Amino acid sequence: MRNFRQLLFGKPLRSEEAAHERLPKWKALSIFSSDALSSVGYGPEQIIITLAASGMLVYGYFGYATIAVLALLTIVTLSYVQVARANPGGGGSYSIALHHLGETPALTAAAALVADYVLTVAVSVSSGTEALVSAFPDLIGWEVPVDLAVLVLILTIINLRGVRESSNIFVWPTYFFMFGILSMLGTGIYQALTGTAPLVPAESLVRQEADWVVILLVLRAFANGCSSMTGIEAISNGVPMFKEPGVTNAIKTTYVMSILLGLMIAGISFLFIHVHLLPADHVTMLSQLAEQTFGRGWVYYYIQLTTMLILYLAANTAYNGLPPLLSIMARDAYVPRYLAAKGERLGYSNGILFLTLISSVLIVIFQGNVEHLISLYAIGVFLSFTIAQTSLVVKWTKEREAGWQSRTILNGFGASITAIVVIVIAVTKFIHGAWIVLFFIPAMIAIFRAIHRHYQIAASQLHISTEEFISQLQVSNPKNLIIVPVSDITQIVAATIRYAKALGGDVIVLHIYTDEAAYRQFAAKWESLKLDLPLHAIYSPYRSTVQPILSYVSELEMHKSIYHYITIVIPEFETARWWHRLLHNQTGWILRTLLILRDNIIVSTLPYHFKE
Amino acid sequence: MRNFRQLLFGKPLRSEEAAHERLPKWKALSIFSSDALSSVGYGPEQIIITLAASGMLVYGYFGYATIAVLALLTIVTLSYVQVARANPGGGGSYSIALHHLGETPALTAAAALVADYVLTVAVSVSSGTEALVSAFPDLIGWEVPVDLAVLVLILTIINLRGVRESSNIFVWPTYFFMFGILSMLGTGIYQALTGTAPLVPAESLVRQEADWVVILLVLRAFANGCSSMTGIEAISNGVPMFKEPGVTNAIKTTYVMSILLGLMIAGISFLFIHVHLLPADHVTMLSQLAEQTFGRGWVYYYIQLTTMLILYLAANTAYNGLPPLLSIMARDAYVPRYLAAKGERLGYSNGILFLTLISSVLIVIFQGNVEHLISLYAIGVFLSFTIAQTSLVVKWTKEREAGWQSRTILNGFGASITAIVVIVIAVTKFIHGAWIVLFFIPAMIAIFRAIHRHYQIAASQLHISTEEFISQLQVSNPKNLIIVPVSDITQIVAATIRYAKALGGDVIVLHIYTDEAAYRQFAAKWESLKLDLPLHAIYSPYRSTVQPILSYVSELEMHKSIYHYITIVIPEFETARWWHRLLHNQTGWILRTLLILRDNIIVSTLPYHFKE
Repeated sequence: MRNFRQLLFGKPLRSEEAAHERLPKWKALSIFSSDALSSVGYGPEQIIITLAASGMLVYGYFGYATIAVLALLTIVTLSYVQVARANPGGGGSYSIALHHLGETPALTAAAALVADYVLTVAVSVSSGTEALVSAFPDLIGWEVPVDLAVLVLILTIINLRGVRESSNIFVWPTYFFMFGILSMLGTGIYQALTGTAPLVPAESLVRQEADWVVILLVLRAFANGCSSMTGIEAISNGVPMFKEPGVTNAIKTTYVMSILLGLMIAGISFLFIHVHLLPADHVTMLSQLAEQTFGRGWVYYYIQLTTMLILYLAANTAYNGLPPLLSIMARDAYVPRYLAAKGERLGYSNGILFLTLISSVLIVIFQGNVEHLISLYAIGVFLSFTIAQTSLVVKWTKEREAGWQSRTILNGFGASITAIVVIVIAVTKFIHGAWIVLFFIPAMIAIFRAIHRHYQIAASQLHISTEEFISQLQVSNPKNLIIVPVSDITQIVAATIRYAKALGGDVIVLHIYTDEAAYRQFAAKWESLKLDLPLHAIYSPYRSTVQPILSYVSELEMHKSIYHYITIVIPEFETARWWHRLLHNQTGWILRTLLILRDNIIVSTLPYHFKE
Repeated sequence: MRNFRQLLFGKPLRSEEAAHERLPKWKALSIFSSDALSSVGYGPEQIIITLAASGMLVYGYFGYATIAVLALLTIVTLSYVQVARANPGGGGSYSIALHHLGETPALTAAAALVADYVLTVAVSVSSGTEALVSAFPDLIGWEVPVDLAVLVLILTIINLRGVRESSNIFVWPTYFFMFGILSMLGTGIYQALTGTAPLVPAESLVRQEADWVVILLVLRAFANGCSSMTGIEAISNGVPMFKEPGVTNAIKTTYVMSILLGLMIAGISFLFIHVHLLPADHVTMLSQLAEQTFGRGWVYYYIQLTTMLILYLAANTAYNGLPPLLSIMARDAYVPRYLAAKGERLGYSNGILFLTLISSVLIVIFQGNVEHLISLYAIGVFLSFTIAQTSLVVKWTKEREAGWQSRTILNGFGASITAIVVIVIAVTKFIHGAWIVLFFIPAMIAIFRAIHRHYQIAASQLHISTEEFISQLQVSNPKNLIIVPVSDITQIVAATIRYAKALGGDVIVLHIYTDEAAYRQFAAKWESLKLDLPLHAIYSPYRSTVQPILSYVSELEMHKSIYHYITIVIPEFETARWWHRLLHNQTGWILRTLLILRDNIIVSTLPYHFKE
């Protein structure tokens, strides 16, 4: 058992082995941006799906939706540079909001972040598998099993092993992916300009008249497209991991990441329009584009596999993000305390398992369908964007450091825009799944509060002053009544009574009987032992042994004026083979379980081991 | 909870409330014969299924197979009259065999009986549902859910409530059923004789040449037909329930039952041949016959519903048979002892639940298919017939009472014939499922023996002489070391230490820490309390609190020269709401579970109740 665990998860690490390594920019870029950059694997496609799937093709508006997304990207980037500057110590929107806005916004941000991280895993894993299935259509129908295998067998185990974030295996896929996509964009645009690419029929780009239905569709397409921006906050949360000067390096890296992301979105969108691609079942549009550009050769497979890899890696970033967030919240007592505990390999094992569990459930419920998951996704992200920037506005206006006015304006503008995006998404995607998130965020907040309240009450109940502690221990000579249930005269009874006598206190031997004749025989035998232990016998008309003991104890409790404690000593059989246990009734176990629920009754379990 | 249970199962009954009522013959006939008589609901059909379903129709042999079944019925009846005579005290073939033949035959009979009872439930419930579905084809596809509902919601609850066997609700269905079937046979035969019934084309009765394939088919048909005889042993096991003179009344009732059964089998078979019916999916042949005879009017529905009722009732007889058998075996220590315990309503609840569980599994595995279940059924029945009669042969030759020769011959002949039937069934039905029973019977015997061995060994390990018992208790002043794991200074720790001090023994306070600074703070605080309790602190590099405590205890055990006992006092949080429990780590519970597995470590659980 232990060996198997060590094989899977590696040997336990001592607390001293926790290491902190600072990253150069080129490594940080790849590690922190896999989530954001991988979004191009589904973002642009999600815009077209909305525009093309509604029985009316409003392809001509694709360009506008994309431009709106790019504009928003610029705003969010500039705002998040401020976040990095304001929080050189790291910590996401939960910490910032708790500090500057108070509990409710902080818990809202936390709930949004939890939803965000869980959906990052579900969406990224599902998209990664779609990239894989596009290349290998034999896998059609196996998407959900592949998703779960990646989640449970790869991501969970890697994270329970606690491979360092900075490990090189996380660095290269991002560069491989960037290289592939940029090559494809270069080739595609070259083909477009030199005319070897297929021509788009001009009429397909004609825009229908902009009535309300069309406007709603375009807004919904934009809402879907906003999923391209998820993950952009990662760098600002990770400032402490950058080489000095951390803030400057983080800011530079943010700019590089956003420019790369913008270029990819723009390039992919341009080619989608130019080649006039449409969504298809079981083949992603990125896969269609790669096939169109390079044919189904090794370059195509390279692009599909690096896309798959970076998407799975993006899921991994949630494993780096959610468990530490939960551990911070656990220390603040908003989630169960044990989410703060580091496991054998110094990872937050409980948080890791929590993330795997919830995202597996999501994948199974939504059958790994990216389109449906996306509807839930962007709203949480933009909600936490809004809260983080609002916190900054409060911070700037409070602290009034040099240049605070322009910063306030910048973040205020960012907050307003992202707030509008939240509303757009909530309205246009409401029936498509946004309601789920809008229901769960308040539910989560309520749960966080209930947990917090319980811990506060528990703490106040457990609190004791030094004086009271000392005085409690000075109660003179507390008296203990010890009850030994006995059914027959056996080795185990001898051992139990012997132990009971070793405890300081008065011992009562309790005998429950269902048969008068058998009882008289037992009583005579007991008499002949001439022990100075009082035997108390109780007739059980309903043949239960547990119930009469419970009643007897209750009765004693009511009259236990002279006793401080009632201790029941219960032997516990330990059989030599597991199945032997099935042959003995579980009265001891049942009794123990029921008695523990009582106040003031102490249950002492005395092991008795069968030799064979 | 308690109220709901009482609503479902009735209020608990006192041991004194067990009642014994003796039955008049007319009641006994109906109560004991529902199993046997209901067999006509599937027996004759099972013969035809074999003859018709093999790609070749050997319908012409149906009459022969039926005549063989009737001849066998006569022999078995005469033999079982002897069983009733030999065992006025009741008790089935297990008790007889244990008394006259020894352990192995008795366990074989027991295993066969267990298989028999379980299959009686599975076959009867499935057949009852088939009768229902024949009348109401809308239920097609819902057979298994209906079966399970009848099993769990009706049979199990009725039997856990412990409705008396003699209750009138069990008396009337049998008579209703007999009335319906006999009316149908009368009408059908009248129609046949007066020529209003359809004529059978003469060529259909032509027999093919009797090659080996045909002989095997006919033998297999006969083996299937033997299922008509199941349940015939019921009366001889129930002699003590008859009014005086019990034996005479039981014998008379047996004859009446057998004659009724024989008449029904003969009549139904005659009409099957005459009307030339063939098996069909989802409609039993008895249903076809009833429809043919009466049309689909209320008489038809009367026959279907009484057939359904008597079949479900037949399943109920297994509930009257198996739990008492298991309780006798439990007293002989061949099955877990708690199968001997009477429940709140004086029924053998554990046996009842066991029967429901196993027969549900069978129904689910075989999808409620009577034809497949029948293959498993008859072999167990005839095996126990054979053993019972062999036991009688031994008894007669040993006791040599008046007329022993003729009895020996009768039972010897019966035993030989039923043994041949066992072989015929085993051979002809081997691949159809008989192998399952032939595998499980030895497996069950092995299990019975293993259980018996364990109880013997356990008893010898638990045995103690009076002198030894007294001397064990006279060990002078055993010393107890008490360990209190402490993580902080709280109310609960105060309560725990206070209790520990009330026990006679030396107290050690054990502190596990993972953080050096936090430990120093705690140690200083502890110092300031100035208690005369030694604090033992252990650093846990891998952050587990359980592991260091276990290691510490192991180390102590190795050096515990002066201590007889090591007691660990563990507080147990009891939260006010169930979900609060999820907010506390389960270290106490884990520690308790792991420590109980150790020898010589006593775990004392001190409850601490949160008020809210």
